[in-house]
Amino acid sequence: MTARVDFNSDIGESFGAYTIGCDPEVIRYITSANIACGFHAGDSGWMHKTVQLAEQHGVAVGAHPGFPDLRGFGRRNMDVTPQEARDDVIYQVGALAAFTATKKLQHVKPHGAIYHMAVKNDDLAKGICEGVLQVDPDLIVTVLAGSRWIDIARRMGLRVARETFADRAFNADGTLVSRSKPGAVIHDAKHVVERALRIVTERTAIAETGETITIEADTICLHGDNPAAVELAAALSAAFQAAGVALVPLGQLV
Amino acid sequence: MTARVDFNSDIGESFGAYTIGCDPEVIRYITSANIACGFHAGDSGWMHKTVQLAEQHGVAVGAHPGFPDLRGFGRRNMDVTPQEARDDVIYQVGALAAFTATKKLQHVKPHGAIYHMAVKNDDLAKGICEGVLQVDPDLIVTVLAGSRWIDIARRMGLRVARETFADRAFNADGTLVSRSKPGAVIHDAKHVVERALRIVTERTAIAETGETITIEADTICLHGDNPAAVELAAALSAAFQAAGVALVPLGQLV
Amino acid sequence: MTARVDFNSDIGESFGAYTIGCDPEVIRYITSANIACGFHAGDSGWMHKTVQLAEQHGVAVGAHPGFPDLRGFGRRNMDVTPQEARDDVIYQVGALAAFTATKKLQHVKPHGAIYHMAVKNDDLAKGICEGVLQVDPDLIVTVLAGSRWIDIARRMGLRVARETFADRAFNADGTLVSRSKPGAVIHDAKHVVERALRIVTERTAIAETGETITIEADTICLHGDNPAAVELAAALSAAFQAAGVALVPLGQLV
Amino acid sequence: MTARVDFNSDIGESFGAYTIGCDPEVIRYITSANIACGFHAGDSGWMHKTVQLAEQHGVAVGAHPGFPDLRGFGRRNMDVTPQEARDDVIYQVGALAAFTATKKLQHVKPHGAIYHMAVKNDDLAKGICEGVLQVDPDLIVTVLAGSRWIDIARRMGLRVARETFADRAFNADGTLVSRSKPGAVIHDAKHVVERALRIVTERTAIAETGETITIEADTICLHGDNPAAVELAAALSAAFQAAGVALVPLGQLV
Repeated sequence: MTARVDFNSDIGESFGAYTIGCDPEVIRYITSANIACGFHAGDSGWMHKTVQLAEQHGVAVGAHPGFPDLRGFGRRNMDVTPQEARDDVIYQVGALAAFTATKKLQHVKPHGAIYHMAVKNDDLAKGICEGVLQVDPDLIVTVLAGSRWIDIARRMGLRVARETFADRAFNADGTLVSRSKPGAVIHDAKHVVERALRIVTERTAIAETGETITIEADTICLHGDNPAAVELAAALSAAFQAAGVALVPLGQLV
Repeated sequence: MTARVDFNSDIGESFGAYTIGCDPEVIRYITSANIACGFHAGDSGWMHKTVQLAEQHGVAVGAHPGFPDLRGFGRRNMDVTPQEARDDVIYQVGALAAFTATKKLQHVKPHGAIYHMAVKNDDLAKGICEGVLQVDPDLIVTVLAGSRWIDIARRMGLRVARETFADRAFNADGTLVSRSKPGAVIHDAKHVVERALRIVTERTAIAETGETITIEADTICLHGDNPAAVELAAALSAAFQAAGVALVPLGQLV
Repeated sequence: MTARVDFNSDIGESFGAYTIGCDPEVIRYITSANIACGFHAGDSGWMHKTVQLAEQHGVAVGAHPGFPDLRGFGRRNMDVTPQEARDDVIYQVGALAAFTATKKLQHVKPHGAIYHMAVKNDDLAKGICEGVLQVDPDLIVTVLAGSRWIDIARRMGLRVARETFADRAFNADGTLVSRSKPGAVIHDAKHVVERALRIVTERTAIAETGETITIEADTICLHGDNPAAVELAAALSAAFQAAGVALVPLGQLV
Repeated sequence: MTARVDFNSDIGESFGAYTIGCDPEVIRYITSANIACGFHAGDSGWMHKTVQLAEQHGVAVGAHPGFPDLRGFGRRNMDVTPQEARDDVIYQVGALAAFTATKKLQHVKPHGAIYHMAVKNDDLAKGICEGVLQVDPDLIVTVLAGSRWIDIARRMGLRVARETFADRAFNADGTLVSRSKPGAVIHDAKHVVERALRIVTERTAIAETGETITIEADTICLHGDNPAAVELAAALSAAFQAAGVALVPLGQLV
């Protein structure tokens, strides 16, 4: 059986007169787009344009809801209640879905701080999942590979996509090495491509401490913040196609 | 044939710790609720609560999108482009719909300054209608009785509800007397009830200048800002039922 | 020597069309006003009105900066950096000072979550104090009685006002009993007045666990959220004057 | 007597993770900086950095207050009352001043839509000037050369800087040709430099219709949005110095 994987990227993060990212380039290399919904980034105008960009390229559209913190780009932890998280997810997912041709999204991937907090906070993870379920029980929720959140979401009846990062080092237990530590982010493109291929074809990676560990992932997060990131996305896409790995949107995988 | 009309009210305008309006009271007297969507008022938490309140009372749910101006409560004119209006409507309507049980709204009634600007600005009116159509072509758009907006919306294929105000004086041409003029707002409850009944049963009103004019309206706007407004809503509801007028939501009327 | 104390209250927390609090009543019983600065509550119009209200009553004006979280009323913890806290304090304090007759404030009391986080997070406390120092080194910073923040601020050269709460129970170490525990808030007005007088005249209180503990406080926080709170403020003011305690603004105390 | 003029530019318009403009380059060619204050652009962090940048380069610091419309970058007309404009100006000017070393600004130049509306709306112009006066009666207000606003501000006791644009065509009455008309913006750098020199040394310009008209200006607005704009700023600066025109901040001119 052919190995298959999804490539996802966070796009649509411009706001008003402020542009950010290389959306028209990175869209060519991904199969699923996580589009900002106006809380941590994006606005109604950019959401409209970005949904159209994804639809024109046949890229599956998902919502990328974040904390209501444009100043902090959704990267600052906030002590929201699970109910507040649920309602903010419903709001943002509903808003984005309204811009699509079919009024249906493929998936929801929380952004930045709310994503990382939910990996460790089960109540927050549940609140987010309740929000997704309220909007559409067919939606896939994208969460960190190896996290408890996977089981939480599945027990609630949601389809789950497990996400991994090709350019991040792993601890022996499969968690990501903290960005505050040296070596946490892998900058060598060739190395990143090799790691990504290994994760997808063998379901393993070499941890920072040398162990071979299992990584079960359905989707790999690509970045499109700058030209170098886009080049890496292109290299990954080319390497995967050369290796016979099928790049398919999440909806066909989970 | 029995005369029929819809009673609508703007609710869900609280924000965070700030409460406003008498929603739990006025909900008892209306058939259609216009719920704020987070731009001029409301937030995801209040939207959730307010949709549930309306659904529990069997009141039809509609979106009440406004300008992105919480400070000005959406009452300050803003020179947005028709495209910006369209996208802001799509965003807000989609966000509200996501909180409902069926993911379907009955109607969209723009709020405050964007409503009043669209009455006079055809391009803005079209932009708003494009936004409504994008979300759901079955949606009813609520616009001012007697305005050009009615034809604009109908030509675009939208269902239209014509709204009038029981407590506002009319000019001879059917437009509202400006609030800046004396007598623009009618404060005597008995008088308001009589005017409202006449509009619904005879399709006429007496203009400020004495002429009998035609008013074609599908829905009457009730206020719920304060206890006196709620009393008036109750009085209107009682008088209409005593007169054998059926109070029915817009979806059954237009 | 006459016992002296300051009464402070958080006012000016209305926003646009949203009104909150009983400012015109509570202003009569306090000597220092903490005025919201537009981040967690307040806006430029309410700041102007509220500064004038305080000046008309001869109440000393201070800034009440909070997290940029109107939706959460500044009560949700946010992981801002000390530099972000510093800059947000500078911004808010500068903005408020501009509305005063003299362009000088008496004090700065951080609001809600940023206040409570700074009690436990020395770096955050320092960041706030740096912001206060940047605007005006003569400013008093109001912080929780018994907290490490007192020494942090003093070592940085700031004047410090130690704040206590007449209606909150104390642990044996002088900290406040968590609001999540029964008995944390004292509702009996007579009891609150007795405790407040004892703190000011004897510098002691009875802890929840029975011990007599020392409380060194320069200012007592009164609430003005509702009519009952205002009544309590009036009762406290009357009792203190009857007991010969002088109510004086912070600037004369620290 | 040596001809003298001020070069001003709008800087500090980045927001959070969003960067815009070429501040570190354009700062080298100007004598007065208009720094965004957090309403239409800028935030407390960028205000801090940008004030320091200007101070390090010996460039005079002014506030650049705008409408509360980050999404529209302050370029959309809003019907604010003169009182709202006054209070929003006080707020923003006070906030910016707090970041400076001296707590004093040189000037206030309103931004975008509020500037252009005030040129035509005397009540709005007065409201803005009242705000400036409230903060500091020594402040200079920068307004469009040839506009009624000059006299309005002077009658209120304010120092006024008259601003012109080197790259904009003039009508015969000295007003700017609307951007919607062809030829409104002059793109040829050599032509722009010649016009600018003529305005400063002869106080005249050639209107679009051929007449020689008088232009009384104290300051010329340079743009720093992109590398080409910065090159033009450098060219203007070099040409003025070669021509013996002294570039001095507004505070020495008006």
